[in-house]
Amino acid sequence: MRVYLDNAATTPIDPEVVETMIPYLQDGFGNPSSTHYYGRQAKAAIETSRRTVAKIINCLPSEIIFTSGGTEADNMAINIAVKELGCKTIITSPIEHHAVGHTVENICEEKNIEFKLVKFDEKGHVDLAHLEELLANAQGPAFVSLMHGNNEVGNLLPLKKVSEMCRRHGAYFHSDTVQTMSHYKFDMQELDIDFITCAAHKFHGPKGIGFLYIKKDIKIGNLIFGGGQERGFRGGTENLYGIVGLAKAMEIADRHLEQHQIHVQALKSYMIEQLQNRFEDIKFHGDVTPEKSLYTVLNVCFPNTEKSNMLLFTLDLKGIACSGGSACSSGSVNASHVLQGIKADISRPNARFSFSRFTTKEEIDYALEVLVEVFEHNLKSTPVA
Amino acid sequence: MRVYLDNAATTPIDPEVVETMIPYLQDGFGNPSSTHYYGRQAKAAIETSRRTVAKIINCLPSEIIFTSGGTEADNMAINIAVKELGCKTIITSPIEHHAVGHTVENICEEKNIEFKLVKFDEKGHVDLAHLEELLANAQGPAFVSLMHGNNEVGNLLPLKKVSEMCRRHGAYFHSDTVQTMSHYKFDMQELDIDFITCAAHKFHGPKGIGFLYIKKDIKIGNLIFGGGQERGFRGGTENLYGIVGLAKAMEIADRHLEQHQIHVQALKSYMIEQLQNRFEDIKFHGDVTPEKSLYTVLNVCFPNTEKSNMLLFTLDLKGIACSGGSACSSGSVNASHVLQGIKADISRPNARFSFSRFTTKEEIDYALEVLVEVFEHNLKSTPVA
Repeated sequence: MRVYLDNAATTPIDPEVVETMIPYLQDGFGNPSSTHYYGRQAKAAIETSRRTVAKIINCLPSEIIFTSGGTEADNMAINIAVKELGCKTIITSPIEHHAVGHTVENICEEKNIEFKLVKFDEKGHVDLAHLEELLANAQGPAFVSLMHGNNEVGNLLPLKKVSEMCRRHGAYFHSDTVQTMSHYKFDMQELDIDFITCAAHKFHGPKGIGFLYIKKDIKIGNLIFGGGQERGFRGGTENLYGIVGLAKAMEIADRHLEQHQIHVQALKSYMIEQLQNRFEDIKFHGDVTPEKSLYTVLNVCFPNTEKSNMLLFTLDLKGIACSGGSACSSGSVNASHVLQGIKADISRPNARFSFSRFTTKEEIDYALEVLVEVFEHNLKSTPVA
Repeated sequence: MRVYLDNAATTPIDPEVVETMIPYLQDGFGNPSSTHYYGRQAKAAIETSRRTVAKIINCLPSEIIFTSGGTEADNMAINIAVKELGCKTIITSPIEHHAVGHTVENICEEKNIEFKLVKFDEKGHVDLAHLEELLANAQGPAFVSLMHGNNEVGNLLPLKKVSEMCRRHGAYFHSDTVQTMSHYKFDMQELDIDFITCAAHKFHGPKGIGFLYIKKDIKIGNLIFGGGQERGFRGGTENLYGIVGLAKAMEIADRHLEQHQIHVQALKSYMIEQLQNRFEDIKFHGDVTPEKSLYTVLNVCFPNTEKSNMLLFTLDLKGIACSGGSACSSGSVNASHVLQGIKADISRPNARFSFSRFTTKEEIDYALEVLVEVFEHNLKSTPVA
């Protein structure tokens, strides 16, 4: 049996998405910049996709710039903040994805920008009072970059509160929404954020495509120089099938968003309950309260046992794909910067299980069965009903 | 009848390439950074692809960095030159693709770098004596960026001569090889160039994927910050299917390279001959001598007639897709910077026909037939046999 519980790393593409992409891998192959039949057909597909995306997140089509993925989009937002908007202070957190964290560190050093890290509470949530303090004391225009849903522990940021706080202090606000886009409803008119980012492969779309949302009030120059694509901001022949696939994946997600949320949250709650009922000494990293936690992510902190240092290896052998942190650093021997960032107990083994709308209860049961084998000496003698 | 003669803008994907990509759009969807089964499978596909590419152009796998396409790769090479290698002079030409031209202009202005343009001879070839003079007089380390095959007029640069000249003067050499990769044999050991670039969609591969070749002697830092992909140089979950498709497209091209060259060159020669034999006052932009000209591109300079200002429009109506310049600027009303750059006669209408191994003689005949209709008053009374 193969059980894929690593959906925060990447998701299987929805077959309906692949079906939508295929015509553009066949006859609809034109270059969107060409003025002839093939080009116009391709251009129309891209602009229709852009309108689909814009409608779903309630923004203008012109506020969407398609990129090669979430990482490029995050890099771009930070570069725009410093190079175009003249931000002199960047406020971020120690638990951001490296696409944000490393970009911020680098640009702050290169451009001599003030760099501030916000504190966390004991549950791993941003300390909003500290954020307000940092904003009040910021030198020059400030840029805040805080992710919406953490990819390792799932903690959610109250976006609206942070965007209001940033507005009050005249700061720009960027949120890495790669883990939450198309998993939650985004209304850009309501949220009033300057930059958000997206990677299609996190919600059953293709890899290699994403977007950067840039609020229309923000004037920017070229980001990648080339043939004037994406209204001159990002040169390069567009990833036509990728864009079409992204829009279709968003459309499918949006169509049944609530239904998917309920299904996946139920699986997560079930897994939490089963683990608590059957295992001695089990903990969870981050806050698992539903409204404060990404329903797709569960980071379990297991007891130390003889077999537990081989935990991920054993799960993999038994056909269960999960992660020991984010996929981007799961090959690394260092402890996760996120777990360190929220001061989690990193002396014990952990595993991140992440779910999707394709995950079933049977798969969770199989994972639990294997976990029971691994931790046979740490089970409760009488499981709680 | 639909005839696609705009292969320099983009090419139809080879069905064999699509077939190779599809499993990775289905079950083989893993994140290459994940250490479990799905991740290892994806990682293996990427590294096998990298070895395929490296073998074809005779370089090390570690010299290949996959990018979102040729434009990103060109932007990267130029940024590396200035920000990492400390180049103080950039020598380029006025007929480069905007991915190079605009990037160079921008970075030279931003970083106060000396910016020199090489002269051309009357056929539109780089004046090598002038290039040598510019190199001899360059301030500080120099960076030369000259494209291999021009996308609008097809002129070819003698790569080996230029690379030797750059070595003699201690300059770095970048060549935009987007139009020629997988259309000519590249041997990086023999050519000794520091940077070349590739976009898979120019040779029947997918859009949204390409690579930057960086010679191993060149030490670079991060280009896009993220999860450490591409050995830390370019963050972002890899475009798995794109990479697999790129490698397959290169493999197919390489397998029958000479055969394709002969087929396409024959079509180009046939079109030249037919145009010369049947039309009064026909000219070609650039040099059409086979060994000095990209066999896939033919830029025809037509006489001015009543109907000729509607040339591209008429061809499109009749189902013929071609271009009035590069696709990236074909929507623009300005005269092509390439034709201006080589001092071509821009007072007359022109059309770029670009061919591929899928182009047939019947398609060329159909295009000629339509051209005869458009230029009915400019035909030779007795066509030359």
